[in-house]
Order: sequence, then C-alpha cells, then structure tokens
Amino acid sequence: MKFSGVFPPLTTPFAEDDSLALDRLRENVARYNRTRLAGYVVSGSTGESVLLDRGEIENVWETVREAAAPEKCLIAGTGAESTAETIERTRRAAEIGYQAALVKTPHYYKPQITPELLIEHFLRVADASPIPVLLYSVPQFTGVAIEAAVVVRLAQHPNIAGIKESSGSVQRVSEIIAAAPDEFETLVGSASTFYASLAIGAVGGILALACVFPELCIELYESTVVRDEGRAVALQRQLLAPALTIVSKHGVPGVKYAMDQLGYFGGPPRRPLLPLDDAARRDVDAVLAAVASDVSPV
Amino acid sequence: MKFSGVFPPLTTPFAEDDSLALDRLRENVARYNRTRLAGYVVSGSTGESVLLDRGEIENVWETVREAAAPEKCLIAGTGAESTAETIERTRRAAEIGYQAALVKTPHYYKPQITPELLIEHFLRVADASPIPVLLYSVPQFTGVAIEAAVVVRLAQHPNIAGIKESSGSVQRVSEIIAAAPDEFETLVGSASTFYASLAIGAVGGILALACVFPELCIELYESTVVRDEGRAVALQRQLLAPALTIVSKHGVPGVKYAMDQLGYFGGPPRRPLLPLDDAARRDVDAVLAAVASDVSPV
Amino acid sequence: MKFSGVFPPLTTPFAEDDSLALDRLRENVARYNRTRLAGYVVSGSTGESVLLDRGEIENVWETVREAAAPEKCLIAGTGAESTAETIERTRRAAEIGYQAALVKTPHYYKPQITPELLIEHFLRVADASPIPVLLYSVPQFTGVAIEAAVVVRLAQHPNIAGIKESSGSVQRVSEIIAAAPDEFETLVGSASTFYASLAIGAVGGILALACVFPELCIELYESTVVRDEGRAVALQRQLLAPALTIVSKHGVPGVKYAMDQLGYFGGPPRRPLLPLDDAARRDVDAVLAAVASDVSPV
Amino acid sequence: MKFSGVFPPLTTPFAEDDSLALDRLRENVARYNRTRLAGYVVSGSTGESVLLDRGEIENVWETVREAAAPEKCLIAGTGAESTAETIERTRRAAEIGYQAALVKTPHYYKPQITPELLIEHFLRVADASPIPVLLYSVPQFTGVAIEAAVVVRLAQHPNIAGIKESSGSVQRVSEIIAAAPDEFETLVGSASTFYASLAIGAVGGILALACVFPELCIELYESTVVRDEGRAVALQRQLLAPALTIVSKHGVPGVKYAMDQLGYFGGPPRRPLLPLDDAARRDVDAVLAAVASDVSPV
Repeated sequence: MKFSGVFPPLTTPFAEDDSLALDRLRENVARYNRTRLAGYVVSGSTGESVLLDRGEIENVWETVREAAAPEKCLIAGTGAESTAETIERTRRAAEIGYQAALVKTPHYYKPQITPELLIEHFLRVADASPIPVLLYSVPQFTGVAIEAAVVVRLAQHPNIAGIKESSGSVQRVSEIIAAAPDEFETLVGSASTFYASLAIGAVGGILALACVFPELCIELYESTVVRDEGRAVALQRQLLAPALTIVSKHGVPGVKYAMDQLGYFGGPPRRPLLPLDDAARRDVDAVLAAVASDVSPV
Repeated sequence: MKFSGVFPPLTTPFAEDDSLALDRLRENVARYNRTRLAGYVVSGSTGESVLLDRGEIENVWETVREAAAPEKCLIAGTGAESTAETIERTRRAAEIGYQAALVKTPHYYKPQITPELLIEHFLRVADASPIPVLLYSVPQFTGVAIEAAVVVRLAQHPNIAGIKESSGSVQRVSEIIAAAPDEFETLVGSASTFYASLAIGAVGGILALACVFPELCIELYESTVVRDEGRAVALQRQLLAPALTIVSKHGVPGVKYAMDQLGYFGGPPRRPLLPLDDAARRDVDAVLAAVASDVSPV
Repeated sequence: MKFSGVFPPLTTPFAEDDSLALDRLRENVARYNRTRLAGYVVSGSTGESVLLDRGEIENVWETVREAAAPEKCLIAGTGAESTAETIERTRRAAEIGYQAALVKTPHYYKPQITPELLIEHFLRVADASPIPVLLYSVPQFTGVAIEAAVVVRLAQHPNIAGIKESSGSVQRVSEIIAAAPDEFETLVGSASTFYASLAIGAVGGILALACVFPELCIELYESTVVRDEGRAVALQRQLLAPALTIVSKHGVPGVKYAMDQLGYFGGPPRRPLLPLDDAARRDVDAVLAAVASDVSPV
Repeated sequence: MKFSGVFPPLTTPFAEDDSLALDRLRENVARYNRTRLAGYVVSGSTGESVLLDRGEIENVWETVREAAAPEKCLIAGTGAESTAETIERTRRAAEIGYQAALVKTPHYYKPQITPELLIEHFLRVADASPIPVLLYSVPQFTGVAIEAAVVVRLAQHPNIAGIKESSGSVQRVSEIIAAAPDEFETLVGSASTFYASLAIGAVGGILALACVFPELCIELYESTVVRDEGRAVALQRQLLAPALTIVSKHGVPGVKYAMDQLGYFGGPPRRPLLPLDDAARRDVDAVLAAVASDVSPV
C-alpha cells in the first residue's frame, strides 16, 4: 500500500500583506516531520489552492518538497477546471519531485459533467501523468460526486492508484472498495467517519483535522490497524466534535485558527474567506478545550 | 439492551383482490420465528402502512401478535401525520400487546417542521404512550431528518428509548451515539452501512433486507458482537449489492419480489406502487444469484 | 374555461377542544361568497387535510357545499397515498356535489415514484372519477414534482382537466402550457409568481393568500385579464411580501393568524402544527400593516 | 437604463489545436454587430472563461473590443475565486475599454460562503473597480445563489449597478426588483423565463440563446417594451424548447453546435467539455428545425 495512513492537506500560510509566508510553511512541516504522518498533500482544498496563482502553487510545492522529511510521501493537488491545465500542473508537480497527483473533478459546468466526461477527463490526465493519479471527489465544495461505477471504471487504468473520497458517505466508500481491484487504494477525506471507513476497508485518510491534531488522527489509524477497536472507537468519538466544528462548520479559517491555538502557524485565510469572528472563535475554543481535557476515553 | 439485534420490518401480503392476505403473513412469521431475529416491526414503511386503513393496520398487528414466537420483541409502527392520531394508534398498539412504538416524523408541512415542532410532537406522544417510543427518522421517504441535537434532547425523556436512524449517514449515527445517554438505543435502517454503524456503537438494525435474508443479517450482527471483524466485513460486502439493488433501488416491490424467489410470500404491492417490470426482475435475479453463489467469503 | 380565476384553498377551523368548528367555516364561506372568487378548494394542503380523518373531511365537504353561494365552483382535495383510497374519496366528493377533484401526487415512496407510476395512478383515478380531475403538484410539501412531460401525457385523458402547479417554477408552468392541449387548464399555487404565470398563459390560481386577501388576489387576476399591466404589476408587488412571509414562511399557522387579524376565523392549527410564536406574529403583523398602508400603488 | 436589452455572452472559438481562434470570434462579432443587440458579455460562463488562462482572457477582451461596433456596450466577466484576482481582472478589463464588469460569486468553499462573505467580497470589488459592477448569480454552475436580501444590501453601493440573475427563479427576480433602488438594473440569464421576468420589471437579458438566435431574443424584448403582449408570449413559446434543449440541457457544446448550424462559428468546446454526440446533435437539430418552421405564431 503506497498511500496508506494519515496525510494532512497542508494549509498555505499568508503574511500580513497577503503574500505567501513560506518560512511559516517550513516551520509547520518541520513540526509535522516529527510525527508518523505518512506524508503531505500540498495545494489541496485546505491549502486554498483555488485562491493561489500558478506561480504561488509552484513555490508552495518546492517549499514543502525541501522541508519534508525524506520518508514522507508527497502528493500534489493538481486538479484544474481544464483538462489541459490539469495535465500541465501534474507534469510540473512530477518534475518538482511529487510522488502522486490528487486530481479533483472539474465541476463548473455541472449539467454537462456526466460520467462519460469524468471518465474521459481522468483517463487523459492519467495517460499524460508521469506519476500516479489519485481521484478526488469532494461534492461539498464542487457539487460533483464521482459515483462508484465511475471510480470502478477508472480504477482499471494502471496509472490511477486510488481515490480521496470526501463526501462522507460510508456507503459510497463501501461500494468503491467492494467493486474496485484490490490494489486500488481508497482514502477518505472526512474525519467524522474515519474509523467507520477504515473498518470497512479504507486504507487511510487525507484529513484537514490532521493539520490540527496529527497525533490523534495517527493514533486512531494505528489503533484500527492493530485491531484495538475499543481505543479506536474512543478516539473517533473524541475527534467527532472537532471534525464537525473546526473543519465542516468553520472550514479553512477554522483549521487555521485552531492551528494557531496549538502552536502551528495558521494565520489568516485569503479573501474572500474571512477570519473567524468572535462567536466562531469561542466555538472552536470550546472544542479545543474539550479535546485537551478528554483524557479518560483515550 | 431491549432493542438490540436484527428486526425485519414485515411486509404486508395482499391477495389478488387487494385485500389483506393474513394467512400468508402468518406463514412468513412462522418461518421467521425459526431464526434468531430479535423481533418484528409491524406496519412500518416496508409494511406499506401509508397504504393501509386503520382497520387493516389493527388486523395486521393482531395477526403478527398471534403468530410471533413468544420471545420475539414486537414493535408497531404508529406514526401518523397528526399528533392526536399518532397517540391513538400508539395506545391501540399497546392494548394489542406491542412492546414498543416506532414513530416516524410528521413530514407533510416541511417548511414548518422545525426542531421545536418535532420536539413537541414526540414529547406529547411519549407522555401519552403506555409503551416505550422509538423515534424514526427516514428522510429518503419523508424529506425530514431528525438532527442529532433534537435526538439528544428527546433522549432525556424516560419513555423515549431509542431511534431507528434510516438516513444512512454514519456521521449522524456517530453524533447521536456520542451525545445521547448510554441507555438510549440507536438502531439503523440502512443495511448498506449496518456493519459500519455497529462498529461505532449502534445496537441493532431494522432492516428491510432482513425480510429477504434474515440469516445473513443476523450473522453479520453476531459476528460484530463477537468481534469477528473479518467475517463481519465479508458479510457486509456480500449484502451491499442486495441492499442497494433490492431495497434502495426497487423498494417495497423489490423486497416482495425477492421474498417470492426465496420461499416467502411477497406478492404484489398495493397501488400506486407497481410490481417490478421485467428489467427490474432481472436486476434483482442477478443479485440473488450472486448472493447464492457467494459461498467463499462467508 | 371552467376553472379560471381565483380560488382560496379553505382553511379548516378547529374549536378549543380540537374538534371541527363548522360554524366558523360557514361564517368564513359566507364572507367569501360576497367576493368574485371563482369557487373554493376544500380539504387541500391549506385545509390541513392530512391531519383530518375521513369522517371529518366529509363533514367539511358537506358544510362548504351547503354554505357556498350557488355560482361558486367547488373543488375537493381527494388525493391520498393509496390509489384505491384516492378513488373512494373522489367518488364520495362527487356524490356530495363537488364539481372537480384536486388530486395530489402520492409521495411517500419517493424513489419508486417514477413518471410511469404517476401516469398509472392518475389515469386510474381519472378513469374511475365521476367528476373532472385536476392534477396537483406541490413538491415543497411532497418532495415529488410532476414534470411537464408527465403532465402533457396525462392531459390527453378526457377526464383530466387541468393542473394546480404549486412549485413556483414559472419555467415548468411555461413548459406545460406550451405542450398541453389548449383546453387543458393550468392554475398555479404560488401567489409570489401569480402575475408572471398569468402573463405566460395560466388561467387562474389556487392561492392560500386568497384566504387572507381575496379581493387583492381577484383584482390582480382581473387586471391581467383586462391587460391593465401597470396595475397588475403594482398588485403583484404589493402581494409579494405577504405571499413570502405569511404563506411560504409561516404556512398554515401563518395563514390562520393573518385571517384572525382581518376578521375571518383562523384559529389554531391542529398539532403537530404549532401556532405562531411572538416573533412570528410580529413578522406577520408587519406585513399586514404594510399592505394596509400601501394605498398608493393600487 | 445603461444595461437594458439583450446581450449574448459570447462563446470563445477554438482552433483544431485548442488555441484561440480569434479571427472566428471577429467574424461572429461582425455579424452580431448588424443586429440590435445592446452589447456583448465577454468571458462569461458561456465563454468558457474558467477554461482559459489570464493571457487568453485578455486576448479575447481585446479582440472583441476591436471588433465590436462602437454603440455596443461591452461587459467583461471578471469574477475569480479570489477577491484580489477579481479586482486585478476588473481593473484590466477597464483598461482595455470595457464599460462594466460582470462578477460571479466565489463558490468553492460553499459552507463558508455566507451572506456576510458575499457582501464583503462584492463591496471590495466595487470599491476597487474603475467601472460599474454587475453581480452575477448562477447557482446551476456555482451552487451559490445571491439571495434577494444580499442583493438589496449591495445595491446601495454606488458602483454596483445591477445583477445578472441566472437562477431562473422568477420569484427571486421579483424580490430583487421590489426591494432594490429604482436605478438598480436586473437582467436575467434564463431565456426560458425571459418574458415573465421582463413582465415583472427586469430590464434585459444576458442570454446564451442570444448567441444562437439574437434576432428572436431582441424581438421578444422589443415586443415587451412596446407592450405587444400577444407577440411576446408567442415568441417566448417559440424560444422555450431551444432554451431548454440547447442551453440548459446541452450547455456550451450545445450552443456552439447550434451556432455552427446557423452560420456562426461555434466549433468545439475545450476539454473537459465534450462535443455533442450523435444523439445530442439530433436533439438540437430537431429543435432548430422546429424554430425554422415556426412562422405562424411570430
């Protein structure tokens, strides 16, 4: 299994003047390097990649490539709306040294995004990519889901190695695992259903919550691997409120704020995203306090 | 735990002239009696209760009460749109000898079905009911979900014993289990996520698929209880396509047709429901054949 | 045109003990008789028919039949979930003297409610009905819309006279009018798009808002008939906030409360519906005050 | 009224090698110049702007600026996900000579796209823009609608001149017109509800269908202005099927294919969009033939 375990989709730090704060990014990565995180996803949704220009994205890729410990698996988010641009970005990520490309669905022209279109798009990207492709289905942002039948069709391609399934639908994850070849790797993007997904056969998670609580996410993953079900369930329960409040409800600004509270550099999101207001901060503070005090179940 | 294990929501057999075929119902129950099913849910969604009149519903309740083995737990579906009628039906079910009432949400006036309305409705029913109440959330039919916060509020009532959560959302099941009192029992209505739900703390399932495959559903449940995770995952995988094809896709007519193929009496649904057409029958036949031949994993 | 003009879907008055307040219903009808309303729809959604039992529905039908002025067209809401019960109710309404039946879609088993099922259901009802049938599509309550292609197919039946289209989609109303035979009558159920619907060819409205403001609704209709576009647009603008606030937002309890403020008997809704709370009352009061003071545009 | 009348959102022609075919664009514009189109929207959704890079967008802007007849109003689509990039694009469009900017909503981080975020985003863009801003709400592509209350708030800004409302909701158009200042201009993006929208006060349309049938769209608009309601309704009826089939169902590839059939240059869409398959072409052909033969009503 090449992509098993826990991957944080790294946030992109910005300076006061809205430029990239690459030093801060290096510091975050240095700290993550000391954990058993499997690797890093760079310029995904949590990395605000849709708010970065091409030059910025490449700067971020290079910075993380240099800062990452050598054993960490590096995955670049390379999906763009256009097939041609997705291929260009994927090739560039490979040149910089990334080991896989995470390719989200095109999504703007929703009524025309048919299964056939998705299959053609991903096959072309996979054909052209020097590195393995991971499909990325994130309907809460894109409004487009990759249905199981499409995944299974794409899983036949030798250069499509797996999927990040972020819908939170455990049923769809089950369908994919049941029907795809054994070597196809299913990772999930939803921390609130991480344990349930691992229980039915997912091999890992690309979890925004792992930017905030890498150790707890790793411990949940490892408890499942060693079949310590009691501990895994307790950890999942502990992570449920943080997943729902910090990630689902407050999004990138919530993740960044929580990181700031825990010694990472989160910093402000880029506009149009707004920093948390006072009520939202209290909301996140309460969840962080509950996790900090929750020693009994774990 | 009073409501743990596997319950089929019994189908209602109809004769050629569209009247109740109560003898056929007795025969089905006699056969189910020989399994380790925990009990029966009578006049739920799968029982076409919305297509029965009050007299028919009581006939069905009495028939199953008489036919059921004494150790089986009997649960009556008593939810109607009106609060007063729901209370009347619940009291009548208790008189006939039912041990609990499964009460679905009112749902017609959707924009007015607020959390407050749901709380008032269920509290009144629970206050008036001589038997424990199980909440029933089935948004795929009603368009109304009981959110976790509402469940948690209602779980404080001493006569609200649990919930049948049929949305298929493992996240919502997790939220309920995490926040409700320990004695509150969460059952699920979705066979496709049965194992995942049990893994995170659900105590049982009210599964239309158990009308067709009671033994396999029981075996999945019992494998989970004894922590035979390998077998549980294999069984879940075996039941996935039947759950999606027979139950989710083809509904009550699909369940009845599959029952007919396996020696139960399914028979026709009541109109407006239509019996399966040829293509749908072939669809179900293929799934049944796959289950029959799938001896290896189990 | 048999069903053109404005029809209020009459509310059902309840006494303090939750029984029918038929005298109050007679009083409301007596007052409506003095307007140019085209007739009355009895036991529709606004009439809380899903909260009434069969005996109550027939009492209401008889009461309105007796109270209505002879020139008023009487339409009974007869749609039930079961085809057979819908037919029974329709025949009973005809016996009592109703001139048409308004038949809402079955809707509980949503995944099985296919175009084919809807066509079979409505054709059977139309075949069996002694009086003309009006289709009723109200997806905001049922979750089921009758698509234009289904309407057009059903419009071929000699006993299906028209539709009450309550989705609020002017596009769907256009599609129906463009494709159905000329004699098929399209009424709408949404006061917020009443003028736009009339402008593209609808012949009338069955409007909950006409329970509150019959004269204004009639005036809007008549202004359109005589092509006084300026007055029609001004009236539509005046009725927009009441339609959205009283009907769409606050539903039957909102309509009843507003009726109480204007000298009709509204009274309490039946549970689970809740009477308006203080904030909702103020919301409706503000809208009523604005209509009362809005003398300039009309 | 600065933005009244009919505007086509110009398609972007591509050569066989997927590069911009600017000569073809000039030819299309030259032909449109001979009509009473009010102006051109360049690099909107129909212009595949999400599939173009920044350099290509500017080339297209310059080409149309040069090719357009001097009386045509030029509007540039400048909305990007990031506020800063939206401002940059808007300033560049102004430099090139565009008279207004059409700014679609940011939409990727849907759960965080609150009314507050939308207000802050558009106010910043409006503050920084040298030219008037038109809001652009197109939920069928973005999954984000600008609710009437947000429009009304933004309409207070002196540099926000109007909106292109493409949801197809006539009710929302009514709400905006009722509540916004008189000088705020509401254009719609849905040809299937163009007449209904004009009837309740919209001042024009930015219609993909006007790329295919500019004359018929103009005639519908002008018939409404001169209150020839009979002709307007007939034209709307004639344009209904083309709007639904060519634009809503088949999208940009449908519009381009239809243009090719009518002597414009449509050409292939850019990937991931796929050209129409045979069945889709026949679908569009049938609609085009029906319009061509439909001489009677107009």
